[in-house]
Amino acid sequence: MFREKIKVLDCTIRDGGLMNNHDFDLRFVREVYRAVSGAGIDYMEIGYKNSKKLFSQKDYGKWKFCDEDDIKRAIDGITSKTKLSIMVDVDRVDIEDVPAKKDSPVSMIRVASYAKDIDKAIFLVNHFADKGYETTVNIMAISRALDNELNEALHQLEEECRAGVIYIVDSFGALYQESVEFLVKKFNGILKTKEIGMHAHNNQQLAFSNTIEAIIHDANYVDGSIYGLGRAAGNCPTELLLGFLKNPKFDIRPILDVISKEFVGLREKLEWGYLIPYAITGILDEHPKAAMALRASSKKENYREFYESLMGDDID
Amino acid sequence: MFREKIKVLDCTIRDGGLMNNHDFDLRFVREVYRAVSGAGIDYMEIGYKNSKKLFSQKDYGKWKFCDEDDIKRAIDGITSKTKLSIMVDVDRVDIEDVPAKKDSPVSMIRVASYAKDIDKAIFLVNHFADKGYETTVNIMAISRALDNELNEALHQLEEECRAGVIYIVDSFGALYQESVEFLVKKFNGILKTKEIGMHAHNNQQLAFSNTIEAIIHDANYVDGSIYGLGRAAGNCPTELLLGFLKNPKFDIRPILDVISKEFVGLREKLEWGYLIPYAITGILDEHPKAAMALRASSKKENYREFYESLMGDDID
Repeated sequence: MFREKIKVLDCTIRDGGLMNNHDFDLRFVREVYRAVSGAGIDYMEIGYKNSKKLFSQKDYGKWKFCDEDDIKRAIDGITSKTKLSIMVDVDRVDIEDVPAKKDSPVSMIRVASYAKDIDKAIFLVNHFADKGYETTVNIMAISRALDNELNEALHQLEEECRAGVIYIVDSFGALYQESVEFLVKKFNGILKTKEIGMHAHNNQQLAFSNTIEAIIHDANYVDGSIYGLGRAAGNCPTELLLGFLKNPKFDIRPILDVISKEFVGLREKLEWGYLIPYAITGILDEHPKAAMALRASSKKENYREFYESLMGDDID
Repeated sequence: MFREKIKVLDCTIRDGGLMNNHDFDLRFVREVYRAVSGAGIDYMEIGYKNSKKLFSQKDYGKWKFCDEDDIKRAIDGITSKTKLSIMVDVDRVDIEDVPAKKDSPVSMIRVASYAKDIDKAIFLVNHFADKGYETTVNIMAISRALDNELNEALHQLEEECRAGVIYIVDSFGALYQESVEFLVKKFNGILKTKEIGMHAHNNQQLAFSNTIEAIIHDANYVDGSIYGLGRAAGNCPTELLLGFLKNPKFDIRPILDVISKEFVGLREKLEWGYLIPYAITGILDEHPKAAMALRASSKKENYREFYESLMGDDID
């Protein structure tokens, strides 16, 4: 697949940070930035811009806050054409913490939002666009968005929002390829002036194939993470994405290097990737937090009991 | 997805046997048979029927030969509606070793063949069909089959072969979903009187999605293996397939149980699943044997060097 317009964003540090309270050391972040830059990847997302009034710097590492000076230390001296991105969550950012683009090493701000919070997301995006940034809206938990709410959100985004890219985010790793096709076609049908993005989770080993499916139906912004590092089952592996995309600007070798040197060892300390409890929450279209709690407990291999506990919730 | 005609075959013991010289102990095979039976899976493939003249019983476990008495010990006393299958390879079977169906616990014989060996496969299938078995042809390494040879093979299968099912086998885990769609449509276009099957490998984490893709385009026989156990990167995980298929005859819970009790521990001793060297051979459409050799060596994490060694083969 070679389509000039396709842009790859590596979210290893940002989504991976959900597994260690965003506490990667500077050396590791620099190695990832070096690899991503050497691989010719378009964007690297280095963390969240969260409010220090809401979250304590004692409890979280620096990539939950992404101070400009920390970012500068992470990239200093490394030759790169890779642009930097940060993510903000609706209701968790102080907009005054974000300087004008000309005073920041960051090129793009991605606003993560549920479909129901789209008005807040639009406000944030337009504010950051005014400050000079490229912007996106990432619609989370899309497998649970009601169709009428999603349609309304997409029309608002097309009409009121300055974001250049709107992402489908399969937060729970619940989508099969037919639903990805449905959603990308829906997005493209409404969002006439915007690009479509795909951010997939790997609970059912479908993150890579769902990303390919989105590309087939004309999504041009795709997220990967090195060795799949990300929350719970993780994300679409960047190395597989580069193996699939035939744009000669990409080079898989720096990614292979950094996996050998940094990620094989890290995987022994930090548990992410395909595990049965994450598969179960994906199959059931549930947030992985119950599965993450299970993995931290003494019942971590009791899969049947875990499945039955999720099936057994009373509901009416 | 609920289509009555879809049949699931669990090939855990057969394909997993490629990782331990088919030397699973009887207790383990019985636990797998119990789980597969409890889950309502249609077929279980228990091993190969290989010639004892070609392979020594000293070097290989019993599931490389599948003596009828061994199979009977594996299933004795377990309530089941699951039919048993064995695989034979062209040029590696003594047909006189295969008794008449009425004298065997086996229901189905699957003949694995390259497209170029299709005449030999047809001979074997028709012989086994005469003996009373259900039969299939599994066309291996299909990512490397030349289109003209494949077309000719499919026409021969339609006209000369008594097999009820013809399988697409992505031996190298090299196919993306567009190629699966292309192949299933080709197969269905020529094989008017036969069902289509899919056997996928997971080098690029695409075994499950490629199996779904085949189902979407009307393949009705699909292979899974528990926890993905199989050669190198393994196969489509049976647990994910059961999560996707909505036929109420299937029950995922016995599969979850046996993974907890048998497969989590086994994975610590036997290495299968997504690993970068297998991803590399999948991306490059190569047999995984070089990657398996790498994993058994002291250079097992030298991914870049391995990639460059495969890229650097002289060719003209």
